[in-house]
Amino acid sequence: MDGWHETEIRVRYAETDQMGIVHHSNYLIWFEAGRSDFCRARGFSYKDMEEKDNALMVVAESYCRYKSPAYYEDDLIIRTKVGEIRSRTLRFLYEVVRPGDDELLAEGETLHVVTDENKRVRSLPETYKAMLLKDSEEDENAFPANQAPH
Amino acid sequence: MDGWHETEIRVRYAETDQMGIVHHSNYLIWFEAGRSDFCRARGFSYKDMEEKDNALMVVAESYCRYKSPAYYEDDLIIRTKVGEIRSRTLRFLYEVVRPGDDELLAEGETLHVVTDENKRVRSLPETYKAMLLKDSEEDENAFPANQAPH
Amino acid sequence: MDGWHETEIRVRYAETDQMGIVHHSNYLIWFEAGRSDFCRARGFSYKDMEEKDNALMVVAESYCRYKSPAYYEDDLIIRTKVGEIRSRTLRFLYEVVRPGDDELLAEGETLHVVTDENKRVRSLPETYKAMLLKDSEEDENAFPANQAPH
Amino acid sequence: MDGWHETEIRVRYAETDQMGIVHHSNYLIWFEAGRSDFCRARGFSYKDMEEKDNALMVVAESYCRYKSPAYYEDDLIIRTKVGEIRSRTLRFLYEVVRPGDDELLAEGETLHVVTDENKRVRSLPETYKAMLLKDSEEDENAFPANQAPH
Repeated sequence: MDGWHETEIRVRYAETDQMGIVHHSNYLIWFEAGRSDFCRARGFSYKDMEEKDNALMVVAESYCRYKSPAYYEDDLIIRTKVGEIRSRTLRFLYEVVRPGDDELLAEGETLHVVTDENKRVRSLPETYKAMLLKDSEEDENAFPANQAPH
Repeated sequence: MDGWHETEIRVRYAETDQMGIVHHSNYLIWFEAGRSDFCRARGFSYKDMEEKDNALMVVAESYCRYKSPAYYEDDLIIRTKVGEIRSRTLRFLYEVVRPGDDELLAEGETLHVVTDENKRVRSLPETYKAMLLKDSEEDENAFPANQAPH
Repeated sequence: MDGWHETEIRVRYAETDQMGIVHHSNYLIWFEAGRSDFCRARGFSYKDMEEKDNALMVVAESYCRYKSPAYYEDDLIIRTKVGEIRSRTLRFLYEVVRPGDDELLAEGETLHVVTDENKRVRSLPETYKAMLLKDSEEDENAFPANQAPH
Repeated sequence: MDGWHETEIRVRYAETDQMGIVHHSNYLIWFEAGRSDFCRARGFSYKDMEEKDNALMVVAESYCRYKSPAYYEDDLIIRTKVGEIRSRTLRFLYEVVRPGDDELLAEGETLHVVTDENKRVRSLPETYKAMLLKDSEEDENAFPANQAPH
């Protein structure tokens, strides 16, 4: 699994545009769905982070490369992993794949700054950092030591 | 003006769907833009109502009748007026018109319940009620007494 | 099952608004997701209907009653059924339920006019009509004859 | 004007999320509104390009840096300019500015590939290329020769 978490989505009619393909802004929403799901799979909710620990992961940068269009009713996989974690920022990486024809539709990343509810930058609580990195550590045991994580 | 307030919008590419027309969910967003603008024209902001007076106009019902499609780059007018105001609810009416060919594209309404920030029903502050009704009163002076407001 | 088809969705962050709840326009998008899924469960795709049989189900009316708010990360069920089918129109009914606390969050309906790709009204092809009604017929066998369908 | 075209928008309630700020996916939609408007100001419509000349500007990459949040009812300016034009690709640059406090909220860019309606890459028709570059050429006359365009 090399640190990637997979989230299934099905393309909605409302997500298409008059070009007959998914409007490009939706990929950022899918990335976010993947990110939420990634966090849940690591044992915590984005919601808890906001409500219980006053830590928000504000999006500071987004990037997406659109390689091939997605269509209405496509069953897609959003693949999400942590790119890097620093004390006050973290980066997530994404891939959008259509298993039906094994096509990589898009890849992207988002950079997040950790803030409190008043938008002041703060450091990511250790407990979340540990959970976000959890799976990668397991990979180090599961894979040969000389194989670098992506 | 018979109580209607007019808001101009231009159809965005992202608002179209693969049928080549505006996706029907956007009309609710346009109604809301019309409503916001209506309130501003009456002298207050939705935002103030929320932040200063702890009064939220939660949408309790929405209805829209789609008569003719809107297209990308159409310049449209959202016409908004107050339908009725009761102590704890208020109703707005809308029309979406395309001045270019004078077509009535849609008409609809939304019913709102006034709540505080904890979602408890409360009464609409008198000051807002007065402002919302302001224009209608002016109409009573401007039009013959026997002409009922719409 | 009394004709209802169930579709699971999870509330996305992007679907919330600054009131901290799901923005009301998203319910129309969820209804549509439920409708697409309903059709698939009846053996056909909305997409096929458009591409192979030149029949579009254009939304002519939408109505939604919002009873209780939905929140970020809520796991919801969209319940969809056919309300009525006439030669050129059909009506779908919806309920949005949160199984976690068994709350009915919203109910609504959409009326559709069947058109060809040039937006001319046409009749619903018999084959789709038969598939849409399939499950209801099974209900007539499964339930006592004197029990009115919902 | 150094090649920048300005488009006014007002933030909609539906564009906010539960963090109380505009959801980051909307910036891509605003960029697109700016781009449409830019093209119109140069004398052509995106729509014409699609319908009359079978040339689509498919989004191949998007990037946005979010520097400061936008809020409900903010009056914003989307500044758009052409970054570079090659035979089959073109790049647009954007800035989102809030004139009220003169804050630069975001900056970004999109890369487009020109295709026909069947998604085959083609070259940008010369007529559009000329119109897109029109203003920049005027700049070359208006500014000192040694001043590099942004």
